[in-house]
Amino acid sequence: MQELPISRFPVPELAELPEDIRNRIIEVQEKSGFVPNVFLAFAHRPDEFRAFFAYHDALMEKESGLTKGEREMIVVATSGFNQCIYCVVAHGAILRIREKNPLLADQVASNYRKADITSRQRAMLDFAVKVSTQAYDVGDADMELLREHGFTDEDIWDIGAIAAFFALSNRMANMLEVRPNDEFYLLGRVGRDKS
Amino acid sequence: MQELPISRFPVPELAELPEDIRNRIIEVQEKSGFVPNVFLAFAHRPDEFRAFFAYHDALMEKESGLTKGEREMIVVATSGFNQCIYCVVAHGAILRIREKNPLLADQVASNYRKADITSRQRAMLDFAVKVSTQAYDVGDADMELLREHGFTDEDIWDIGAIAAFFALSNRMANMLEVRPNDEFYLLGRVGRDKS
Amino acid sequence: MQELPISRFPVPELAELPEDIRNRIIEVQEKSGFVPNVFLAFAHRPDEFRAFFAYHDALMEKESGLTKGEREMIVVATSGFNQCIYCVVAHGAILRIREKNPLLADQVASNYRKADITSRQRAMLDFAVKVSTQAYDVGDADMELLREHGFTDEDIWDIGAIAAFFALSNRMANMLEVRPNDEFYLLGRVGRDKS
Amino acid sequence: MQELPISRFPVPELAELPEDIRNRIIEVQEKSGFVPNVFLAFAHRPDEFRAFFAYHDALMEKESGLTKGEREMIVVATSGFNQCIYCVVAHGAILRIREKNPLLADQVASNYRKADITSRQRAMLDFAVKVSTQAYDVGDADMELLREHGFTDEDIWDIGAIAAFFALSNRMANMLEVRPNDEFYLLGRVGRDKS
Amino acid sequence: MQELPISRFPVPELAELPEDIRNRIIEVQEKSGFVPNVFLAFAHRPDEFRAFFAYHDALMEKESGLTKGEREMIVVATSGFNQCIYCVVAHGAILRIREKNPLLADQVASNYRKADITSRQRAMLDFAVKVSTQAYDVGDADMELLREHGFTDEDIWDIGAIAAFFALSNRMANMLEVRPNDEFYLLGRVGRDKS
Amino acid sequence: MQELPISRFPVPELAELPEDIRNRIIEVQEKSGFVPNVFLAFAHRPDEFRAFFAYHDALMEKESGLTKGEREMIVVATSGFNQCIYCVVAHGAILRIREKNPLLADQVASNYRKADITSRQRAMLDFAVKVSTQAYDVGDADMELLREHGFTDEDIWDIGAIAAFFALSNRMANMLEVRPNDEFYLLGRVGRDKS
Repeated sequence: MQELPISRFPVPELAELPEDIRNRIIEVQEKSGFVPNVFLAFAHRPDEFRAFFAYHDALMEKESGLTKGEREMIVVATSGFNQCIYCVVAHGAILRIREKNPLLADQVASNYRKADITSRQRAMLDFAVKVSTQAYDVGDADMELLREHGFTDEDIWDIGAIAAFFALSNRMANMLEVRPNDEFYLLGRVGRDKS
Repeated sequence: MQELPISRFPVPELAELPEDIRNRIIEVQEKSGFVPNVFLAFAHRPDEFRAFFAYHDALMEKESGLTKGEREMIVVATSGFNQCIYCVVAHGAILRIREKNPLLADQVASNYRKADITSRQRAMLDFAVKVSTQAYDVGDADMELLREHGFTDEDIWDIGAIAAFFALSNRMANMLEVRPNDEFYLLGRVGRDKS
Repeated sequence: MQELPISRFPVPELAELPEDIRNRIIEVQEKSGFVPNVFLAFAHRPDEFRAFFAYHDALMEKESGLTKGEREMIVVATSGFNQCIYCVVAHGAILRIREKNPLLADQVASNYRKADITSRQRAMLDFAVKVSTQAYDVGDADMELLREHGFTDEDIWDIGAIAAFFALSNRMANMLEVRPNDEFYLLGRVGRDKS
Repeated sequence: MQELPISRFPVPELAELPEDIRNRIIEVQEKSGFVPNVFLAFAHRPDEFRAFFAYHDALMEKESGLTKGEREMIVVATSGFNQCIYCVVAHGAILRIREKNPLLADQVASNYRKADITSRQRAMLDFAVKVSTQAYDVGDADMELLREHGFTDEDIWDIGAIAAFFALSNRMANMLEVRPNDEFYLLGRVGRDKS
Repeated sequence: MQELPISRFPVPELAELPEDIRNRIIEVQEKSGFVPNVFLAFAHRPDEFRAFFAYHDALMEKESGLTKGEREMIVVATSGFNQCIYCVVAHGAILRIREKNPLLADQVASNYRKADITSRQRAMLDFAVKVSTQAYDVGDADMELLREHGFTDEDIWDIGAIAAFFALSNRMANMLEVRPNDEFYLLGRVGRDKS
Repeated sequence: MQELPISRFPVPELAELPEDIRNRIIEVQEKSGFVPNVFLAFAHRPDEFRAFFAYHDALMEKESGLTKGEREMIVVATSGFNQCIYCVVAHGAILRIREKNPLLADQVASNYRKADITSRQRAMLDFAVKVSTQAYDVGDADMELLREHGFTDEDIWDIGAIAAFFALSNRMANMLEVRPNDEFYLLGRVGRDKS
């Protein structure tokens, strides 16, 4: 089945890639055991690859008032609205692992309003979905509501920026038709996957 | 975690239930190894329980030009649009089992247009989603398109009727907040579950 | 004009039908003076016919905290949103008769927010329309609002279940193109029709 | 029941009105047997009254390639989408009378796509609804389609202009909450009303 | 470039026009220095021309609790939602001139919620946009909110009526493809244009 | 008026910034004569600043089958749909300069379908808007259509990637409430601005 194309666009050979990109790909493979297809799909455009993953890391890997699991909830909830298979499946796997919860990702992808989350996380996702689907209407009242749940202004930037970054990511994955690796579907479902 | 409520409404004890309903529940438990929560949630209303499952069986269990797996695709695709966690998770499990494919359900729930399905199945799901979201606009051209893909008129009724039945089912599950059983999330993912 | 087809699908002869279905049809004809076309359209599928009308009766004929007129308001309001001619016309007639009000059905079908109804009925229809069009967003606040208007939890189930059932019914009628009987259009308009 | 307010805004006494407006109102009363409430509601603003009815007459009373019945179909179809009780009920009555058809108005108001109309009228209403709901997307292909159904360019202007005028009218009636006269509901339903 | 057509429909010669229309056009040319194309496009239909501009003047030229600048804000905000180039460009110019503010029109056309306006004007535009896009849902609470901002009931009529009139105007301009005069684009941008 | 805040979040002093970011800002100021506020707003987050502008440059500054003017059309059209004042105003200015056309930006921001563009550019913007608003539905037929207009696969990536990047950018600008510099509003309108 893995003969199915990874991307609608050409996927370069590892050997052809600039060294920094090849190294990044080798690094993720060593860490995860496989190369997530989004790396291969974006490698067709090295400059965009570098900017995309630099942006990703600036939001998803740094210190933040949001846990890494909460950040993945934002990705999964907004990617669900954008109907992006790649991001729902790949980040759903990461969410399961980060939260050590095999159920949460499928809930958040389908309907975050009825998922097993706290009311603080519900407020976080309400805001993320608003930024994702109607950012033009974001205003002071939204900020106020988040502050009441204990979010700092820096947290609010993080929530909105993750939603905004995956607005880009979802559109790219849907346009490129990036195929999620088979590995993602099962990751984190049986409680013994590494983080 | 299974202490979380199964339904927003009262869930009767098995012993309190009319005999036919109790028997149906025991039967499904013996077959599946657990009682899907939708049975317990609907048991609060015995007459609606009987009609609901009679309708379900009339569409999903009978002989049809659609395979049982294709019928589950319709359920999962339309339930995804209706943001119904219960139906996406429970019928996603059944779809994986019916099709012996651990990947398909998550794809169809997120974006059936980019799932690993045939063009005939794509036409089937386009129609099902149209019935689910804009039945008022269904017309002769839709029928014609399906016939070109080899569907008979009886098949077309089946596709539309399943979409219509789960329009009901999704709304009930969302209103009742029926919680999917934990078992569903993993079923059919590792290729060794029974049908 | 009545030469126009009743359904896009075949309509069986009464003599060909299973006895229970034939009897049900004869019974409704004796009561109403004509056979509503939805009975003939669904008779093409006896098992679905039985489940459909059993479900209908379980909601619309039983004792309830909602009057029969209020239940018809729910049908007419949600069928208006679903653009279902059959249900708007047929249940509009029943609504006029139940409420002995020749004006209400046309108002509720066009815009229930500006119809001659009480504020309690407005809350009821707001909830019914929410279940019909965005059940995924139904939550505790909706329940609370209905309770403030004096609805019990059983009433709330009834409101939502009727909206959900006609989500099914509207989609079937639109897919089948069930034609409302000419009789419905005038019923209850001149204040002397039987209930 | 007619104690219910005719408009959310003040309704002037006939005696207080400028003579031309009073005469117009008396004239319509003599012709129709009652004063449609839209005349009384708009009389609060004499200059707007004059412009509104001048515009109305320029479109609805003049010679046109569209019959008067067809023009009323446009009003009823687009007013249905705009959820305007006044226009659906009042112009539904006029449509029944113009077409000598007691069924058509309820069909067109609910779902013109499945109403008893010709394919030429279907094309006319498709265009009218497009102008009403997404005029920004009207283009050459729409014109071409209408010409294929035999509409002249002047007819096309008429279709679009009626849809545009009732976009105004529907919004005013909904903002003012103009109540349709009880008389409209029954007009044209029993085949013996005057034209 | 001005060889591009002014309207999709025929544009009459000034000499062919009825005298009152010709005079009106000459008058606007003398006042503005050019003839806005909407006058030429509507001149194809003299009766509609007269009603259209009479309606326009009744709302936009009369005494009102709204300043002329505020009325233009309503036009620009609602025309932005309706994607009407003519009205955004032409009334954007008038708004810049009326408010002696070269920035405001582009802000209001893009997203009035983030424009440099007062909270009273924000409430005004919220209502105008509601009348423009969902008048069926306008109710007492909307009136109350406007009254809290100091608007009288006559002001409220004005706001809604301007939104309703430009619902018509936007649809006509889009159907006719009326081209804005080149002059409008620069008017009021450099702070020295006449009012 | 320029006392109005540039961003909802803190804006750092130039002296506090990392050297590479300060240099980039000084460079743009020297080239443009002022510092576009988006640079100052993003400077609050240096890592995101670097990734954002690296991504921007990778798409907007490189060699491409699309002219720089066409790329700005994509930005303006999609930013109009996203109701982003900053991007409409700032990139509208750049579009006027790139295309040496003072009218085009306002047209494309309001309704690109009726703007003064070629049919090839219309196809380009149709695709860009589809990626921006419904990327989940992008498929082979969209690619085929673009190829018929002479776009290469690399061009198609560019169109979609620009639409995707500004999906991010518009959401950030709306969340941060980045205020466009006053200078942008007039740039390119009078035909003598530098490129």
